[in-house]
Amino acid sequence: MYFDTDAGGVVHNISYLRFIETARTYLAISMGMSFEEIARTQIHPVVVRTEIDYKAPARLGDILLIHGHIGTHSGVRFHVEFEIIRPSDGKLLITCHQVLALVKMPEGHVIRLPSGFPDSFTLTA
Amino acid sequence: MYFDTDAGGVVHNISYLRFIETARTYLAISMGMSFEEIARTQIHPVVVRTEIDYKAPARLGDILLIHGHIGTHSGVRFHVEFEIIRPSDGKLLITCHQVLALVKMPEGHVIRLPSGFPDSFTLTA
Amino acid sequence: MYFDTDAGGVVHNISYLRFIETARTYLAISMGMSFEEIARTQIHPVVVRTEIDYKAPARLGDILLIHGHIGTHSGVRFHVEFEIIRPSDGKLLITCHQVLALVKMPEGHVIRLPSGFPDSFTLTA
Amino acid sequence: MYFDTDAGGVVHNISYLRFIETARTYLAISMGMSFEEIARTQIHPVVVRTEIDYKAPARLGDILLIHGHIGTHSGVRFHVEFEIIRPSDGKLLITCHQVLALVKMPEGHVIRLPSGFPDSFTLTA
Repeated sequence: MYFDTDAGGVVHNISYLRFIETARTYLAISMGMSFEEIARTQIHPVVVRTEIDYKAPARLGDILLIHGHIGTHSGVRFHVEFEIIRPSDGKLLITCHQVLALVKMPEGHVIRLPSGFPDSFTLTA
Repeated sequence: MYFDTDAGGVVHNISYLRFIETARTYLAISMGMSFEEIARTQIHPVVVRTEIDYKAPARLGDILLIHGHIGTHSGVRFHVEFEIIRPSDGKLLITCHQVLALVKMPEGHVIRLPSGFPDSFTLTA
Repeated sequence: MYFDTDAGGVVHNISYLRFIETARTYLAISMGMSFEEIARTQIHPVVVRTEIDYKAPARLGDILLIHGHIGTHSGVRFHVEFEIIRPSDGKLLITCHQVLALVKMPEGHVIRLPSGFPDSFTLTA
Repeated sequence: MYFDTDAGGVVHNISYLRFIETARTYLAISMGMSFEEIARTQIHPVVVRTEIDYKAPARLGDILLIHGHIGTHSGVRFHVEFEIIRPSDGKLLITCHQVLALVKMPEGHVIRLPSGFPDSFTLTA
């Protein structure tokens, strides 16, 4: 979309993080997360660290594919990995690693991950 | 800023609405609104209508000047007007008219404007 | 998505314009517009006026439906209409009317609409 | 600003990257970069990696202070560090490390840093 690009003629570095948040949300929904549950409990998934490598730029109108994967977790934090690929030339554009926690709002307390939190989960969007 | 521009090489149409929201916030603060008061009362200013005309484009790095003006109000709605000007050539880039209301969250009820709500107020940023 | 909401607990007024731009792009693509053609010719569709009415708020996780419609056009401007509806309760949240032109970049000249520009075209996304 | 917050009631994780890009731009301008020069040469500063740690959340209306620092550089990449602090309670909210390169558009070639590129430069905004 135009609003994802900048005057350099390519997708702006911040826009990929919106794509990744969208993929992360689909990942969470397919794992059983519900926004109604979040609104009721006010326990929100919160990003505590992002590492993102920009390997090649996307351009206006490129169709992109995002692979998401939930990896290891400790008692309070879980890790997700994303790759953004342009299928038209098979190019790997972005790799991203994020660490998240569950936070009870408005207090801002970190919550222990529920037992049964998955060790691994993969989605492509 | 780069994130305000798009692949057409100019400022994206949606970015001006962020500039205007920023100016509107400064206007509200200079009229005595406080975010602490909003957080405490959960009465939020809410945009109910925007009309914006894009007369000429801004480019990466342009310094812009915004004039804001609070105009007439009825019992529950108030009107604000904005102009965005590029001082380097004096060009008028944007005119914008917004209608706002005060809304009590989370119920979403529209609140009557307090007595003493100003009839007119102007700010340049 | 979280990034579409604000501290009032509802979808931020500017986010709807991203939804509408996305719908407008799908509308344009289904009419035969191609981003490759835009990149080659540097003739970009440009919004010259937006009118948007916020009738009811969407909340985090709401599924929304957008109806888009290209209406009348003069020699250099064309009009599009959008409605955003929440199917779960049938509520009309947003109506939006935009006026666009085709602009040749980087000169910024407005281009006459090509003959055969459609008089009417509708898409739901 | 409202558009920087989300339904969790705090500043959205992506918004800090806009604050940092704004600070990075001021840093670049105070080092002598000019947008006119970028437009003329089409040599753009491009983020190739971001690491950001979210240590504590900001809320609607918080006044934030950003420290930026340009650190070491190799022949083609340079490193910048940012800290975002809330002066009202002295809390460190964000630390961020970015790696950038200079890229000639539209070809997308990475350019060698000019001789005289500073070894260190600090700005607070």
